Amino acid sequence: MVKEATDDLREPLDAAALDTLFRDARSIREWQDRTVPMDLLRTLYGLMRMGPTAANCQPARVAFVTSAEAKARLLPLMDEGNVAPTRQAPVTAIVAYDLRFYEQMAKVFPHQPGAASWFNHTPEAAREAALRNGSLQGGYFIMAARALGLDCGPMGGFDAHAVAETFFPGQPVEVNFVCNLGYGCPAPFPRLPRLDFEEACVVY
Amino acid sequence: MVKEATDDLREPLDAAALDTLFRDARSIREWQDRTVPMDLLRTLYGLMRMGPTAANCQPARVAFVTSAEAKARLLPLMDEGNVAPTRQAPVTAIVAYDLRFYEQMAKVFPHQPGAASWFNHTPEAAREAALRNGSLQGGYFIMAARALGLDCGPMGGFDAHAVAETFFPGQPVEVNFVCNLGYGCPAPFPRLPRLDFEEACVVY
Repeated sequence: MVKEATDDLREPLDAAALDTLFRDARSIREWQDRTVPMDLLRTLYGLMRMGPTAANCQPARVAFVTSAEAKARLLPLMDEGNVAPTRQAPVTAIVAYDLRFYEQMAKVFPHQPGAASWFNHTPEAAREAALRNGSLQGGYFIMAARALGLDCGPMGGFDAHAVAETFFPGQPVEVNFVCNLGYGCPAPFPRLPRLDFEEACVVY
Repeated sequence: MVKEATDDLREPLDAAALDTLFRDARSIREWQDRTVPMDLLRTLYGLMRMGPTAANCQPARVAFVTSAEAKARLLPLMDEGNVAPTRQAPVTAIVAYDLRFYEQMAKVFPHQPGAASWFNHTPEAAREAALRNGSLQGGYFIMAARALGLDCGPMGGFDAHAVAETFFPGQPVEVNFVCNLGYGCPAPFPRLPRLDFEEACVVY
Protein backbone atom coordinates (compact mmCIF):
# COMPACT_ATOMS: atom_id res chain seq x y z
CA MET A 1 0.00 0.00 0.00
CA VAL A 2 1.76 3.16 -1.22
CA LYS A 3 1.30 6.22 0.97
CA GLU A 4 1.22 9.20 -1.28
CA ALA A 5 0.28 12.75 -0.35
CA THR A 6 -1.68 14.73 -2.88
CA ASP A 7 -2.12 18.46 -3.35
CA ASP A 8 -5.53 18.41 -4.91
CA LEU A 9 -7.85 18.75 -1.96
CA ARG A 10 -11.51 18.06 -2.47
CA GLU A 11 -13.41 21.30 -2.97
CA PRO A 12 -15.89 22.04 -0.16
CA LEU A 13 -19.52 22.57 -1.19
CA ASP A 14 -20.63 26.15 -1.71
CA ALA A 15 -22.99 27.97 0.66
CA ALA A 16 -26.06 27.33 -1.47
CA ALA A 17 -25.43 23.58 -1.43
CA LEU A 18 -24.98 23.59 2.36
CA ASP A 19 -28.29 25.46 2.62
CA THR A 20 -30.01 22.89 0.40
CA LEU A 21 -28.68 19.94 2.40
CA PHE A 22 -28.76 21.29 5.95
CA ARG A 23 -29.49 24.91 6.72
CA ASP A 24 -32.64 25.65 4.72
CA ALA A 25 -34.07 22.14 4.39
CA ARG A 26 -37.10 21.40 6.54
CA SER A 27 -39.22 18.32 7.23
CA ILE A 28 -42.20 18.88 4.96
CA ARG A 29 -45.87 18.15 5.66
CA GLU A 30 -47.55 20.20 2.87
CA TRP A 31 -46.74 19.24 -0.69
CA GLN A 32 -46.97 20.98 -4.04
CA ASP A 33 -48.99 19.29 -6.75
CA ARG A 34 -45.92 18.37 -8.73
CA THR A 35 -44.80 14.89 -9.71
CA VAL A 36 -41.39 13.31 -9.12
CA PRO A 37 -39.83 11.76 -12.24
CA MET A 38 -39.38 8.01 -11.75
CA ASP A 39 -35.78 8.27 -13.01
CA LEU A 40 -35.02 10.48 -10.02
CA LEU A 41 -35.81 7.61 -7.63
CA ARG A 42 -33.16 5.47 -9.31
CA THR A 43 -30.70 8.34 -9.19
CA LEU A 44 -31.51 8.81 -5.50
CA TYR A 45 -30.76 5.18 -4.70
CA GLY A 46 -27.64 5.33 -6.88
CA LEU A 47 -26.28 8.11 -4.64
CA MET A 48 -27.49 6.73 -1.31
CA ARG A 49 -25.89 3.36 -1.87
CA MET A 50 -22.42 4.93 -2.12
CA GLY A 51 -22.36 5.90 1.56
CA PRO A 52 -20.23 3.77 3.88
CA THR A 53 -21.57 0.92 6.04
CA ALA A 54 -19.81 -1.59 8.28
CA ALA A 55 -18.00 -4.06 6.02
CA ASN A 56 -20.06 -2.55 3.17
CA CYS A 57 -23.07 -4.54 4.46
CA GLN A 58 -25.81 -2.24 3.06
CA PRO A 59 -28.83 -3.54 4.99
CA ALA A 60 -31.21 -0.77 3.86
CA ARG A 61 -34.15 -1.63 1.63
CA VAL A 62 -36.56 0.89 0.12
CA ALA A 63 -40.12 0.55 -1.18
CA PHE A 64 -41.18 3.55 -3.26
CA VAL A 65 -44.96 4.00 -3.13
CA THR A 66 -45.93 5.90 -6.28
CA SER A 67 -49.26 4.59 -7.61
CA ALA A 68 -52.69 5.59 -6.32
CA GLU A 69 -53.49 1.95 -5.68
CA ALA A 70 -50.41 1.42 -3.52
CA LYS A 71 -50.92 4.72 -1.72
CA ALA A 72 -54.45 3.58 -0.84
CA ARG A 73 -52.99 0.50 0.85
CA LEU A 74 -50.47 2.58 2.81
CA LEU A 75 -52.76 5.35 4.09
CA PRO A 76 -54.76 3.24 6.60
CA LEU A 77 -51.46 2.05 8.13
CA MET A 78 -50.26 5.58 8.92
CA ASP A 79 -51.03 7.28 12.24
CA GLU A 80 -53.90 9.73 11.91
CA GLY A 81 -51.68 12.81 11.86
CA ASN A 82 -49.54 11.41 9.05
CA VAL A 83 -52.40 10.46 6.68
CA ALA A 84 -52.96 13.85 5.04
CA PRO A 85 -49.30 14.58 4.14
CA THR A 86 -48.82 11.01 2.94
CA ARG A 87 -51.91 11.30 0.74
CA GLN A 88 -50.69 14.58 -0.71
CA ALA A 89 -47.04 13.70 -1.36
CA PRO A 90 -46.32 12.45 -4.90
CA VAL A 91 -44.05 9.64 -3.62
CA THR A 92 -43.74 7.95 -0.25
CA ALA A 93 -40.59 5.94 0.48
CA ILE A 94 -40.65 3.16 3.04
CA VAL A 95 -37.08 3.00 4.36
CA ALA A 96 -36.46 -0.42 5.87
CA TYR A 97 -33.68 -2.88 6.66
CA ASP A 98 -33.19 -6.54 5.86
CA LEU A 99 -32.54 -8.70 8.95
CA ARG A 100 -30.77 -11.19 6.66
CA PHE A 101 -28.59 -8.60 4.92
CA TYR A 102 -25.59 -10.80 5.72
CA GLU A 103 -26.66 -13.22 2.96
CA GLN A 104 -25.33 -10.58 0.51
CA MET A 105 -21.84 -10.43 2.04
CA ALA A 106 -20.33 -12.61 -0.70
CA LYS A 107 -21.34 -9.91 -3.19
CA VAL A 108 -20.55 -6.81 -1.15
CA PHE A 109 -17.38 -7.95 0.69
CA PRO A 110 -16.05 -10.64 -1.65
CA HIS A 111 -12.44 -10.67 -0.41
CA GLN A 112 -13.51 -11.95 3.06
CA PRO A 113 -15.54 -15.14 2.57
CA GLY A 114 -16.33 -15.36 6.30
CA ALA A 115 -17.70 -11.84 6.65
CA ALA A 116 -21.31 -12.97 7.25
CA SER A 117 -20.18 -14.53 10.53
CA TRP A 118 -19.27 -11.06 11.86
CA PHE A 119 -22.98 -10.27 11.89
CA ASN A 120 -25.08 -13.43 12.13
CA HIS A 121 -23.75 -15.14 15.27
CA THR A 122 -27.04 -14.23 16.99
CA PRO A 123 -30.32 -12.82 15.64
CA GLU A 124 -29.94 -9.91 18.08
CA ALA A 125 -26.50 -9.02 16.74
CA ALA A 126 -27.77 -9.19 13.16
CA ARG A 127 -30.76 -6.99 13.99
CA GLU A 128 -28.61 -4.43 15.77
CA ALA A 129 -26.21 -4.22 12.81
CA ALA A 130 -29.17 -3.90 10.43
CA LEU A 131 -30.71 -1.11 12.51
CA ARG A 132 -27.40 0.73 12.98
CA ASN A 133 -26.23 0.54 9.38
CA GLY A 134 -29.72 0.80 7.89
CA SER A 135 -30.21 4.03 9.84
CA LEU A 136 -26.87 5.39 8.65
CA GLN A 137 -28.17 4.67 5.15
CA GLY A 138 -31.41 6.42 6.11
CA GLY A 139 -29.32 9.52 6.73
CA TYR A 140 -27.67 9.12 3.33
CA PHE A 141 -31.13 8.67 1.78
CA ILE A 142 -32.39 12.00 3.15
CA MET A 143 -29.19 13.81 2.13
CA ALA A 144 -29.27 12.28 -1.37
CA ALA A 145 -32.92 13.28 -1.85
CA ARG A 146 -32.18 16.85 -0.80
CA ALA A 147 -29.08 16.92 -3.00
CA LEU A 148 -31.34 16.11 -5.97
CA GLY A 149 -33.66 19.02 -5.17
CA LEU A 150 -36.32 16.93 -3.45
CA ASP A 151 -37.86 17.71 -0.09
CA CYS A 152 -38.30 15.03 2.56
CA GLY A 153 -41.01 14.44 5.12
CA PRO A 154 -39.73 11.63 7.37
CA MET A 155 -42.28 10.13 9.78
CA GLY A 156 -42.14 7.64 12.63
CA GLY A 157 -45.85 7.21 13.28
CA PHE A 158 -47.29 4.15 11.47
CA ASP A 159 -48.08 0.47 12.00
CA ALA A 160 -44.58 -0.88 11.38
CA HIS A 161 -45.58 -4.56 11.25
CA ALA A 162 -48.44 -3.97 8.82
CA VAL A 163 -46.34 -1.71 6.57
CA ALA A 164 -43.61 -4.37 6.40
CA GLU A 165 -46.10 -7.15 5.66
CA THR A 166 -47.80 -5.09 2.95
CA PHE A 167 -44.76 -3.73 1.12
CA PHE A 168 -42.11 -6.39 1.85
CA PRO A 169 -44.36 -9.47 1.98
CA GLY A 170 -42.71 -12.65 3.18
CA GLN A 171 -39.35 -10.94 3.65
CA PRO A 172 -37.31 -10.64 6.88
CA VAL A 173 -37.57 -6.85 6.76
CA GLU A 174 -38.36 -4.28 9.45
CA VAL A 175 -39.46 -0.75 8.63
CA ASN A 176 -37.22 2.05 9.89
CA PHE A 177 -39.13 5.16 8.88
CA VAL A 178 -41.53 6.34 6.22
CA CYS A 179 -40.46 9.37 4.18
CA ASN A 180 -42.64 11.45 1.91
CA LEU A 181 -40.78 12.83 -1.13
CA GLY A 182 -41.64 15.65 -3.49
CA TYR A 183 -41.58 19.42 -3.63
CA GLY A 184 -42.67 21.02 -0.40
CA CYS A 185 -44.67 24.09 0.48
CA PRO A 186 -42.90 26.44 2.89
CA ALA A 187 -42.86 25.09 6.44
CA PRO A 188 -45.44 27.04 8.43
CA PHE A 189 -43.53 27.28 11.69
CA PRO A 190 -39.92 28.05 12.69
CA ARG A 191 -37.32 25.31 12.91
CA LEU A 192 -37.22 23.51 16.26
CA PRO A 193 -34.23 24.16 18.53
CA ARG A 194 -31.02 22.23 18.05
CA LEU A 195 -28.58 21.30 20.80
CA ASP A 196 -25.59 23.61 21.11
CA PHE A 197 -22.07 22.38 20.43
CA GLU A 198 -21.33 22.31 24.16
CA GLU A 199 -24.46 20.22 24.83
CA ALA A 200 -23.61 17.53 22.28
CA CYS A 201 -19.86 17.67 21.71
CA VAL A 202 -16.61 17.61 23.62
CA VAL A 203 -13.09 18.29 22.32
CA TYR A 204 -10.11 16.42 23.73
CA MET B 1 -52.00 26.26 8.14
CA VAL B 2 -52.09 27.84 4.68
CA LYS B 3 -51.29 25.52 1.80
CA GLU B 4 -49.43 27.52 -0.77
CA ALA B 5 -47.62 26.32 -3.86
CA THR B 6 -44.40 28.03 -4.77
CA ASP B 7 -42.55 28.30 -8.03
CA ASP B 8 -39.04 28.57 -6.66
CA LEU B 9 -37.88 25.00 -6.52
CA ARG B 10 -34.76 24.24 -4.60
CA GLU B 11 -31.79 23.98 -6.95
CA PRO B 12 -30.27 20.47 -7.10
CA LEU B 13 -26.58 20.19 -6.29
CA ASP B 14 -24.18 20.21 -9.22
CA ALA B 15 -22.27 17.13 -10.39
CA ALA B 16 -19.06 18.08 -8.55
CA ALA B 17 -20.94 18.34 -5.24
CA LEU B 18 -22.59 14.94 -5.80
CA ASP B 19 -19.13 13.51 -6.48
CA THR B 20 -17.78 15.05 -3.27
CA LEU B 21 -20.63 13.67 -1.14
CA PHE B 22 -21.27 10.31 -2.75
CA ARG B 23 -19.63 9.27 -5.99
CA ASP B 24 -15.94 10.04 -5.43
CA ALA B 25 -15.78 9.91 -1.64
CA ARG B 26 -14.08 6.86 -0.15
CA SER B 27 -13.52 5.54 3.37
CA ILE B 28 -9.95 6.63 4.06
CA ARG B 29 -7.22 4.72 5.90
CA GLU B 30 -4.12 6.71 4.81
CA TRP B 31 -3.99 10.36 5.80
CA GLN B 32 -2.08 13.38 4.57
CA ASP B 33 0.03 15.27 7.11
CA ARG B 34 -2.34 18.22 7.16
CA THR B 35 -4.20 19.59 10.15
CA VAL B 36 -7.92 20.23 10.44
CA PRO B 37 -8.80 23.73 11.69
CA MET B 38 -10.66 23.51 15.00
CA ASP B 39 -13.32 25.92 13.71
CA LEU B 40 -14.22 23.35 11.08
CA LEU B 41 -15.30 20.88 13.80
CA ARG B 42 -17.82 23.42 15.10
CA THR B 43 -19.02 24.10 11.56
CA LEU B 44 -19.37 20.35 11.02
CA TYR B 45 -21.54 19.93 14.10
CA GLY B 46 -23.53 23.05 13.13
CA LEU B 47 -24.49 21.36 9.86
CA MET B 48 -24.98 17.84 11.23
CA ARG B 49 -27.39 18.98 13.92
CA MET B 50 -29.81 20.39 11.31
CA GLY B 51 -30.74 16.94 10.00
CA PRO B 52 -34.13 15.55 11.06
CA THR B 53 -34.65 13.13 13.96
CA ALA B 54 -37.81 11.69 15.50
CA ALA B 55 -39.49 14.48 17.45
CA ASN B 56 -36.21 16.39 17.00
CA CYS B 57 -34.70 14.19 19.72
CA GLN B 58 -31.02 14.50 18.63
CA PRO B 59 -29.46 11.67 20.66
CA ALA B 60 -26.03 11.85 18.96
CA ARG B 61 -23.03 12.97 20.98
CA VAL B 62 -19.53 13.50 19.55
CA ALA B 63 -16.10 13.49 21.19
CA PHE B 64 -13.43 15.00 18.95
CA VAL B 65 -10.01 13.58 19.76
CA THR B 66 -7.47 16.16 18.61
CA SER B 67 -4.53 16.27 21.09
CA ALA B 68 -1.61 13.87 21.13
CA GLU B 69 -2.40 13.06 24.77
CA ALA B 70 -6.00 12.11 24.03
CA LYS B 71 -5.00 10.18 20.90
CA ALA B 72 -2.59 8.18 23.05
CA ARG B 73 -5.47 7.13 25.29
CA LEU B 74 -7.61 6.12 22.30
CA LEU B 75 -5.08 4.08 20.34
CA PRO B 76 -4.88 1.06 22.72
CA LEU B 77 -8.69 0.81 22.59
CA MET B 78 -8.80 0.40 18.81
CA ASP B 79 -8.63 -3.01 17.12
CA GLU B 80 -5.16 -3.74 15.80
CA GLY B 81 -6.01 -2.99 12.19
CA ASN B 82 -7.44 0.41 13.08
CA VAL B 83 -4.49 1.65 15.16
CA ALA B 84 -2.28 2.94 12.32
CA PRO B 85 -4.92 5.03 10.52
CA THR B 86 -6.20 6.39 13.83
CA ARG B 87 -2.67 7.40 14.83
CA GLN B 88 -2.12 9.09 11.48
CA ALA B 89 -5.41 11.00 11.18
CA PRO B 90 -5.29 14.59 12.47
CA VAL B 91 -8.69 14.23 14.21
CA THR B 92 -10.67 11.22 15.36
CA ALA B 93 -14.36 11.67 16.12
CA ILE B 94 -16.12 9.29 18.49
CA VAL B 95 -19.75 9.30 17.33
CA ALA B 96 -21.99 8.16 20.17
CA TYR B 97 -25.55 8.43 21.46
CA ASP B 98 -26.96 9.41 24.82
CA LEU B 99 -29.29 6.80 26.31
CA ARG B 100 -30.96 9.58 28.30
CA PHE B 101 -31.39 11.93 25.32
CA TYR B 102 -35.06 12.27 26.32
CA GLU B 103 -34.04 14.53 29.21
CA GLN B 104 -33.49 17.23 26.55
CA MET B 105 -37.01 17.02 25.10
CA ALA B 106 -38.19 20.17 26.93
CA LYS B 107 -35.56 22.07 24.97
CA VAL B 108 -35.84 20.37 21.60
CA PHE B 109 -39.61 19.75 21.42
CA PRO B 110 -40.95 22.47 23.73
CA HIS B 111 -44.55 22.57 22.45
CA GLN B 112 -45.19 18.97 23.66
CA PRO B 113 -44.35 18.77 27.37
CA GLY B 114 -44.97 15.01 27.45
CA ALA B 115 -42.65 14.14 24.57
CA ALA B 116 -40.08 12.36 26.77
CA SER B 117 -42.71 9.69 27.52
CA TRP B 118 -42.74 8.69 23.83
CA PHE B 119 -39.22 7.37 24.33
CA ASN B 120 -38.54 6.47 27.97
CA HIS B 121 -41.33 4.00 28.80
CA THR B 122 -38.71 1.22 28.86
CA PRO B 123 -34.88 1.34 28.75
CA GLU B 124 -35.02 -0.88 25.65
CA ALA B 125 -37.29 1.57 23.81
CA ALA B 126 -35.05 4.49 24.76
CA ARG B 127 -31.94 2.65 23.61
CA GLU B 128 -33.54 1.65 20.30
CA ALA B 129 -34.58 5.26 19.63
CA ALA B 130 -31.08 6.46 20.55
CA LEU B 131 -29.46 3.92 18.23
CA ARG B 132 -31.88 4.59 15.37
CA ASN B 133 -31.78 8.37 15.51
CA GLY B 134 -28.14 8.56 16.59
CA SER B 135 -27.24 6.50 13.52
CA LEU B 136 -29.31 8.75 11.25
CA GLN B 137 -27.26 11.59 12.71
CA GLY B 138 -24.13 9.55 12.06
CA GLY B 139 -25.10 9.62 8.39
CA TYR B 140 -25.56 13.40 8.57
CA PHE B 141 -22.16 13.65 10.28
CA ILE B 142 -20.37 11.87 7.45
CA MET B 143 -22.20 13.89 4.80
CA ALA B 144 -21.50 17.18 6.60
CA ALA B 145 -17.80 16.34 6.93
CA ARG B 146 -17.55 15.54 3.24
CA ALA B 147 -19.52 18.68 2.36
CA LEU B 148 -16.84 20.71 4.16
CA GLY B 149 -14.07 19.07 2.12
CA LEU B 150 -13.02 16.60 4.79
CA ASP B 151 -12.50 12.90 4.23
CA CYS B 152 -13.93 10.30 6.62
CA GLY B 153 -12.59 6.98 7.82
CA PRO B 154 -15.44 5.38 9.80
CA MET B 155 -14.51 2.27 11.81
CA GLY B 156 -16.44 -0.31 13.80
CA GLY B 157 -13.54 -2.22 15.38
CA PHE B 158 -12.73 -0.94 18.88
CA ASP B 159 -13.50 -1.63 22.55
CA ALA B 160 -16.83 0.19 22.73
CA HIS B 161 -17.19 0.05 26.51
CA ALA B 162 -13.68 1.32 27.16
CA VAL B 163 -13.97 4.10 24.57
CA ALA B 164 -17.23 5.27 26.17
CA GLU B 165 -15.77 5.16 29.69
CA THR B 166 -12.68 7.06 28.59
CA PHE B 167 -14.26 9.80 26.51
CA PHE B 168 -17.74 10.09 28.04
CA PRO B 169 -16.87 9.26 31.67
CA GLY B 170 -19.84 8.75 33.98
CA GLN B 171 -22.35 9.45 31.21
CA PRO B 172 -25.09 7.13 29.92
CA VAL B 173 -23.53 7.07 26.47
CA GLU B 174 -22.83 4.22 24.04
CA VAL B 175 -20.37 4.55 21.17
CA ASN B 176 -21.80 4.08 17.69
CA PHE B 177 -18.70 4.30 15.50
CA VAL B 178 -15.30 5.94 15.48
CA CYS B 179 -14.52 8.16 12.49
CA ASN B 180 -11.14 9.50 11.48
CA LEU B 181 -11.30 12.96 9.89
CA GLY B 182 -8.78 14.82 7.76
CA TYR B 183 -7.48 14.89 4.22
CA GLY B 184 -7.04 11.46 2.74
CA CYS B 185 -4.52 9.87 0.46
CA PRO B 186 -6.07 8.17 -2.58
CA ALA B 187 -7.74 4.88 -1.69
CA PRO B 188 -5.44 2.09 -2.88
CA PHE B 189 -8.15 -0.33 -4.07
CA PRO B 190 -11.36 -0.02 -6.10
CA ARG B 191 -14.67 0.74 -4.41
CA LEU B 192 -16.48 -2.33 -3.07
CA PRO B 193 -19.63 -3.45 -4.92
CA ARG B 194 -22.95 -1.84 -4.13
CA LEU B 195 -26.33 -3.57 -4.34
CA ASP B 196 -28.27 -2.88 -7.53
CA PHE B 197 -31.55 -0.99 -7.47
CA GLU B 198 -33.46 -4.22 -8.03
CA GLU B 199 -31.67 -5.89 -5.10
CA ALA B 200 -32.48 -3.17 -2.59
CA CYS B 201 -35.55 -1.34 -3.91
CA VAL B 202 -39.06 -2.00 -5.11
CA VAL B 203 -41.48 0.42 -6.79
CA TYR B 204 -45.21 0.19 -6.17
